Amino acid sequence: MKKKRAVLNDNASMIAQCHHGTLLDELRAKTDPQKANTIDFSTRLNPMGSIFQYQNILDLHGLINTSKNLIGQYPDNRYLEFRNAAAGFVGKGLTSSNIIPGSGICEIIRLVLGCTLEKGDIVLVPFPSPPEYNRYSGLFGARVIPLPPHELLLADDDLLSCARVVLLSNPGNPGGRLISRKELRPFAERCAEHRTLLIVDESCIELSDPSQTLAGHIFDNDFVVVVRSIAHAFAIPGLNAAYAIASEKTVQLFNNARLPWSIGAFSDVLCTAVLNIEGGINSSYLEDSRELIRSQRNYLISRIGRIYGFSPQPSDANYLLVDLKDLFMDSHTLTGNLASKGFLIKDCSNFFQAEKQFVRIGLHVQEDNEILLKAIGEVLTETSKEDARERLEVTIESAAAGSAPASRGTCQYYPCHFEGQDCTFCFCPFYACEDERTGGKWIVGSSGNKVWSCENCTYIHQSRLSRKILDILMEEGDTEDNIKKAWNLVIKPLL
Amino acid sequence: MKKKRAVLNDNASMIAQCHHGTLLDELRAKTDPQKANTIDFSTRLNPMGSIFQYQNILDLHGLINTSKNLIGQYPDNRYLEFRNAAAGFVGKGLTSSNIIPGSGICEIIRLVLGCTLEKGDIVLVPFPSPPEYNRYSGLFGARVIPLPPHELLLADDDLLSCARVVLLSNPGNPGGRLISRKELRPFAERCAEHRTLLIVDESCIELSDPSQTLAGHIFDNDFVVVVRSIAHAFAIPGLNAAYAIASEKTVQLFNNARLPWSIGAFSDVLCTAVLNIEGGINSSYLEDSRELIRSQRNYLISRIGRIYGFSPQPSDANYLLVDLKDLFMDSHTLTGNLASKGFLIKDCSNFFQAEKQFVRIGLHVQEDNEILLKAIGEVLTETSKEDARERLEVTIESAAAGSAPASRGTCQYYPCHFEGQDCTFCFCPFYACEDERTGGKWIVGSSGNKVWSCENCTYIHQSRLSRKILDILMEEGDTEDNIKKAWNLVIKPLL
Repeated sequence: MKKKRAVLNDNASMIAQCHHGTLLDELRAKTDPQKANTIDFSTRLNPMGSIFQYQNILDLHGLINTSKNLIGQYPDNRYLEFRNAAAGFVGKGLTSSNIIPGSGICEIIRLVLGCTLEKGDIVLVPFPSPPEYNRYSGLFGARVIPLPPHELLLADDDLLSCARVVLLSNPGNPGGRLISRKELRPFAERCAEHRTLLIVDESCIELSDPSQTLAGHIFDNDFVVVVRSIAHAFAIPGLNAAYAIASEKTVQLFNNARLPWSIGAFSDVLCTAVLNIEGGINSSYLEDSRELIRSQRNYLISRIGRIYGFSPQPSDANYLLVDLKDLFMDSHTLTGNLASKGFLIKDCSNFFQAEKQFVRIGLHVQEDNEILLKAIGEVLTETSKEDARERLEVTIESAAAGSAPASRGTCQYYPCHFEGQDCTFCFCPFYACEDERTGGKWIVGSSGNKVWSCENCTYIHQSRLSRKILDILMEEGDTEDNIKKAWNLVIKPLL
Repeated sequence: MKKKRAVLNDNASMIAQCHHGTLLDELRAKTDPQKANTIDFSTRLNPMGSIFQYQNILDLHGLINTSKNLIGQYPDNRYLEFRNAAAGFVGKGLTSSNIIPGSGICEIIRLVLGCTLEKGDIVLVPFPSPPEYNRYSGLFGARVIPLPPHELLLADDDLLSCARVVLLSNPGNPGGRLISRKELRPFAERCAEHRTLLIVDESCIELSDPSQTLAGHIFDNDFVVVVRSIAHAFAIPGLNAAYAIASEKTVQLFNNARLPWSIGAFSDVLCTAVLNIEGGINSSYLEDSRELIRSQRNYLISRIGRIYGFSPQPSDANYLLVDLKDLFMDSHTLTGNLASKGFLIKDCSNFFQAEKQFVRIGLHVQEDNEILLKAIGEVLTETSKEDARERLEVTIESAAAGSAPASRGTCQYYPCHFEGQDCTFCFCPFYACEDERTGGKWIVGSSGNKVWSCENCTYIHQSRLSRKILDILMEEGDTEDNIKKAWNLVIKPLL
């Protein structure tokens, strides 16, 4: 009867480590504190900054004092004030009995999936989707079927009927496209007909077009749950509270099963006040935020689109999905290189089944966006330099082995400088020398950043010089030292 | 293929509404605000009060300022400082890699069960146990087998091998008994031999005898998870953070699956500081707390034990389980009656499969404990009064129907006042008249509270008077009015 049992069940043991972004502290620990201008573009937070820093519309000091006095007692697990505030904020005729409180969108999505799914169930999601959709469905033994977004909304009756849950984000994450209410509502009705639960993760809809929410259509539909974040819209992820919207009947079901006291005293008081702000969804803070996002989205799409290899996708949200398929670097490398300079962007390989072709960039204010653009330019320049160094190693090794160091006959770019040029060094070992006496110069690249151009320098392609340089580089000792020696002995005298 | 599918799966749909205690706000809304001296004895919080109010050992203001500045960014989901502090607080050679962070014991227990259990699995728990153990096991499709605590520790190999999880609280909840480490350790080793996960919920062990923790025995045992609360030990349930302790390997498994960012900025910073207090588990705050608990436990056991029908059970914890089997009132009624006076105690019927015989009382400081004792006395007096009124109704109805209103022949207490007494009124309709001219007087009852004694008043048992009184009570009109009339016409002239 005894079997070799693992601690975890089969579903949970399949779960890989959670790699959430925003490793800002981890990054700071690695980054040189002298140049620690770290900025996090990997999140989807409101670029306007925390609501508590906006025109002092909220009395943070007073709210903190109220919360402080509540440390010593359990929160009222009904969270009536919070739920009232959430209902009022969303409008659409909602009341507190349409609100499920929770500590974050992850907790709420996990609660809903955990109470709905059974082993072998099918969950339909658009492709790409946040990796949590997959993780949490898997945790409860369900199988995820990813579909292109347009196909998902057109899923036939058989497929809808087979699926226990449809889970999508609107605006899409990481894609950023918003599905209109006009399109989504009939789909929600079809889901209900098939008794398939539709979960719409509206995490950033306040920063896109909140009038497209499905929240107003829950009254006669028990099979739809709308999940809303507070962290994103108000840029307060340090306060962990979120909520879901559903029919009174459906809310009651999930309220029975939810974790008690999941919102602490500070988050409860502060988030309730935030949701009660004057004007609600049309408050000046959110109106200004949407205006900022629109302008920065246009600006960044235009600027990033000019960088060779960067294709920003159309977006209705406060973040951009960028396709890097034409870049000489994959998403993982670009993300790592930017991180080493103190800038986090989101490598989307875990949204795309490990395909390393996409990054997501969260919009910031223009000043910060400029800093990111500059950093991208620097990474591209430096990586070209490293690339040149690597190719140099090949050249040196080939020469040492007695084989032809370079072949003009097979190069599609020949002659890149002049007819009859020596191609021993395809890439210059001195790049970027930054010495204008060579004929090289700084130019403004497509991304708006400075790039060192060698167009008017031909020294490395003169046979006499390249031979001397190669001999020196092949000497014993450190390559870096040999490069300096070659520069001093061969190039410098000519300048 | 279409079937009539519910929103929830079979497991979740079995979950009843969560009835956590501490409905203080709900209670306050119901209670007369003029006498709103509400005190919550239903929780198991440290009676010393919040650590933040103890001798100013923590700079709450400074900690809040630090937290405030972190509202705008995601917590570092690794929670390194918090985990380091927790490891240091528990000691026993733990490091941060032995700590799973979470937002509360419910969240952590649910996480561990959710990742471990599969449909049809068996969970062994002692009887009685917190209802959450049952709820959460059921949510994941497992079946709970409750065993008497001593039988559980002696479970034979077949049973242990069949069980996927053993889940117990130490000290026991609601019982309050502490299982020694010497007893528990060999049991933990037997669980590991059978690859059965042992979860020990040590929520209040800091307030009992923390040296009995199993935390030091996780290093060579991947099948034990020790759950620790911060809310209880430091009386700060408004800050939702907790942690679990396990081997590095087991921690890694659950860390992969846990909810991200479950501890918000304020809870993270404040609870980290709390866990870092000087002296840790032996800090003066906790030493003083244990001393207070010991003395108040002895005091309350002795005082409550003197109330007729109240049998406090032996306890090693900061709460008492009280057996009410000899009381004329069940746990639900007593709890409700005390609540109407502003005092919450824990009706344990949901720990005991709906058996309404037990309540749990959390210890407070002596002043508050006295107030509770007084309130219990009042409830008992008032209930006797109501009981008398109900019996009066029976008397009146019997008389109206022409049957004998009372029978001396069958009463085991006859003659309670004098030989030949009239028993028309077994209970006096004027109780408690509070008029000493009748011979009645206030005496000090067994619980130390004032009780109105009728020992020296015999008016109601004089046939001539009881007949007149009965006639008046049987007149048309409100009983209350008739009682006043009878008092004024029959008794008052005699005083």
